[in-house]
Amino acid sequence: MTERLVVVGGDAAGMSAAMQVRRRRPEVEVVVLERTMWTSYSACGIPYLVGGIVDDIDDLVARTPQSFRDEHGVDVRTGHEVRALDLDAGEVEAWDHTAGRTVRLPYDQLHVATGAVPVRPPLPGLDLPFVHGVQTLDDAARLIERVQDAGGTRAVIVGGGYIGVEMAESFAQRGGDVTLLTASDQLMPTLDADMAAPLADEARKVGVDVRLSTEVEGVEAAGGDTPGGTVVAGGESFPADVVILGLGVRPNSALLGAAGVELGVRDAVRVDRRQRTSADGVFAAGDCCESFHVIAREPVHIPLGTVANKQGRVAGINLAGDYASFPGVLGTAVSRMCRTEVGRTGLSEREAEQYGFGYVAATVHATSRAGYFPDAERITVKALAERVTRRVIGAQVVGREGAAKRIDVLATAMWAGMTVDDVVELDLGYAPPFGPVWDPVHLVARRLVKLLDGSPAS
Amino acid sequence: MTERLVVVGGDAAGMSAAMQVRRRRPEVEVVVLERTMWTSYSACGIPYLVGGIVDDIDDLVARTPQSFRDEHGVDVRTGHEVRALDLDAGEVEAWDHTAGRTVRLPYDQLHVATGAVPVRPPLPGLDLPFVHGVQTLDDAARLIERVQDAGGTRAVIVGGGYIGVEMAESFAQRGGDVTLLTASDQLMPTLDADMAAPLADEARKVGVDVRLSTEVEGVEAAGGDTPGGTVVAGGESFPADVVILGLGVRPNSALLGAAGVELGVRDAVRVDRRQRTSADGVFAAGDCCESFHVIAREPVHIPLGTVANKQGRVAGINLAGDYASFPGVLGTAVSRMCRTEVGRTGLSEREAEQYGFGYVAATVHATSRAGYFPDAERITVKALAERVTRRVIGAQVVGREGAAKRIDVLATAMWAGMTVDDVVELDLGYAPPFGPVWDPVHLVARRLVKLLDGSPAS
Repeated sequence: MTERLVVVGGDAAGMSAAMQVRRRRPEVEVVVLERTMWTSYSACGIPYLVGGIVDDIDDLVARTPQSFRDEHGVDVRTGHEVRALDLDAGEVEAWDHTAGRTVRLPYDQLHVATGAVPVRPPLPGLDLPFVHGVQTLDDAARLIERVQDAGGTRAVIVGGGYIGVEMAESFAQRGGDVTLLTASDQLMPTLDADMAAPLADEARKVGVDVRLSTEVEGVEAAGGDTPGGTVVAGGESFPADVVILGLGVRPNSALLGAAGVELGVRDAVRVDRRQRTSADGVFAAGDCCESFHVIAREPVHIPLGTVANKQGRVAGINLAGDYASFPGVLGTAVSRMCRTEVGRTGLSEREAEQYGFGYVAATVHATSRAGYFPDAERITVKALAERVTRRVIGAQVVGREGAAKRIDVLATAMWAGMTVDDVVELDLGYAPPFGPVWDPVHLVARRLVKLLDGSPAS
Repeated sequence: MTERLVVVGGDAAGMSAAMQVRRRRPEVEVVVLERTMWTSYSACGIPYLVGGIVDDIDDLVARTPQSFRDEHGVDVRTGHEVRALDLDAGEVEAWDHTAGRTVRLPYDQLHVATGAVPVRPPLPGLDLPFVHGVQTLDDAARLIERVQDAGGTRAVIVGGGYIGVEMAESFAQRGGDVTLLTASDQLMPTLDADMAAPLADEARKVGVDVRLSTEVEGVEAAGGDTPGGTVVAGGESFPADVVILGLGVRPNSALLGAAGVELGVRDAVRVDRRQRTSADGVFAAGDCCESFHVIAREPVHIPLGTVANKQGRVAGINLAGDYASFPGVLGTAVSRMCRTEVGRTGLSEREAEQYGFGYVAATVHATSRAGYFPDAERITVKALAERVTRRVIGAQVVGREGAAKRIDVLATAMWAGMTVDDVVELDLGYAPPFGPVWDPVHLVARRLVKLLDGSPAS
């Protein structure tokens, strides 16, 4: 009898695994059950789709269900919402939305990639029809429809993380009237406050009404035939044609949890280095899972597309009977608010303290080109080094065009366990159009050396 | 009696050392003897100065002799050309161009940072007044004067390396009539031919007449009162108001060589990890020195501003009695021809063969933003991995705005001795405006894994 792999979830972490198994073990039947009608799409692209920077929802789809079926022999079943896992019997139970019936499907191996779900605090009105999450392409399609119906849009964004900031950019670029509300005293709380401040400045510059330290109390419908309503926050009322929830996500681990599989941090599915769960033959990957934090040396839940793709690949290689190991994450991420870019990796000061590190922190202001070169833009780099070991444990960058991806150099250095002394000597590229002769990365490392040594010069 | 450090050469490798000693050992007298009237300038900025992108020659000066004297207590003596070193007596002999006399100066420690000199092959006419090197700010000043005198400039660039390419851009942007002649069959021979090809395409697109595989035979003056003349190359004559020599440089090590100090590769000064020469108390740094190539594990001569600054710093720390060690180089470099950027690090295919590596090479075409994002530009990354050890041993990148500095991630990975498997798992930043979810660096590493494994997928 043919061996069957059932994959639950058809985005990055599911389909990467499915494709690895198809290529490595063509004899295995691969069935993917996906709740929505979409596969392999870029959820990270949704803000740019809503903002009209990306034209067509199909642009965000890397591969359609049909092409998985026709070109790769993957049996993708869309509109199938898995409702229960029977690990003893080796069966999944799914609701087929199209046919309107329950189907049961036996498996030999199971891979769960159910992603994450938006956090919805228990506040009044969050279930009103003009309140939108932006997690799936279905969410995106509904939101775009609403925005088109509403005409001149008054958008209220609730939350100041990546999604909140990117949705604010998106609505601002559409020429909408945009308010961003966050309970935090800064945008992007994965950055330290000093590094996040330029994001709020830029948001205000492009016309976003940024309200920090502002707790949302609820949403009220306008009533009658009037669409939209108001968001009540910090004692004020903010009129809204559309409300976007960007309050973060939590792992969508209920299925595995109910089946008795071990959950970990924030109820994310616990997996080993091969992406195996606590149940035999059951793998998991992506936003529903834990990852190991290479610097903190603890499991964390960092739901990001990059991690989902890599974990999916590792799961697939192991599901195929080969060997691969997922070494963990640094929490590297980049984002932007219009022309202001940010990047971060490893631990922020807040996190370094939380994990009990003794550290020094340094911030340098440098330029994106040689100082004398036209269009040299300011670029600010902050980094943290552990005392005694002198290792870099975190870094953040903020600046104009080209700043964000410079974080990758520090992420790579941290990945290798480099000390600040190593980083000072890194052989990085230099020419006047690309930066100063001492790269901003060198400069921040030199500052850290000086702090660690207490020496007169570094 | 006060201890005295004499530094020969007032650019990066000399002044970095001088400043370290001043800060760490304020009691030491620091005398710098500099042949020209300039200190601490960006020679790499000269093409952009000549091209009018940078306005003023003073912009290229990071710190003037006067500010070294007044603000830092460094006794900088410009116009002093050192002509001999008496290591037994502990004295340098210099010609003071201003006073027109020889001075002798005793030292306790000596630091030599005499840089490099342009290669001038023994061809007829290279000493004609319209034939220019572009090594020092004096060269730059003379060249700018000639260009201003000549009016509409017909420039012939001899050599297709960094200087040749950047000077061609510079003259093309001035609207001049530019010819680039190179004996090589590609531009930028530190890149592999496939990666260098887009540079020649771009050069031609902006109007540069690029002549590859074209050997220069000599330069002839127009004669009489007519300025300029012609360059004879490959049997043709190229009229020129100005000729730029960009045939590379050789270490300016004659002083130390004549004093009996050990020279190494290409007659560069041999130094240990602390930048000490074979003579007691005599240090050297920068373009006159060897460096250790971290991948090749052999001494090399790679004259670059980044290396000069780092070696100068290390020399200075050691001269001050503290400890620092220069770990070596990868030969990382970036450059551009107008909108086409290139970066390289480690070994090219040619070099990998020369050093006897068994390796695989892979090239991927990716995009600078998510594929569906507007203004996504093509970016091509090539990398080499050693067989068996699976380590990355070289990488090159070519593409539009933002491509060049991506080489730094691979340089950092190589610095750490990472394998292709490590690179696949690197936690790099991703958001749609900044690249695909699998970074081009990941993609090239995955391709290398596949080549090394011969496996169906990676």
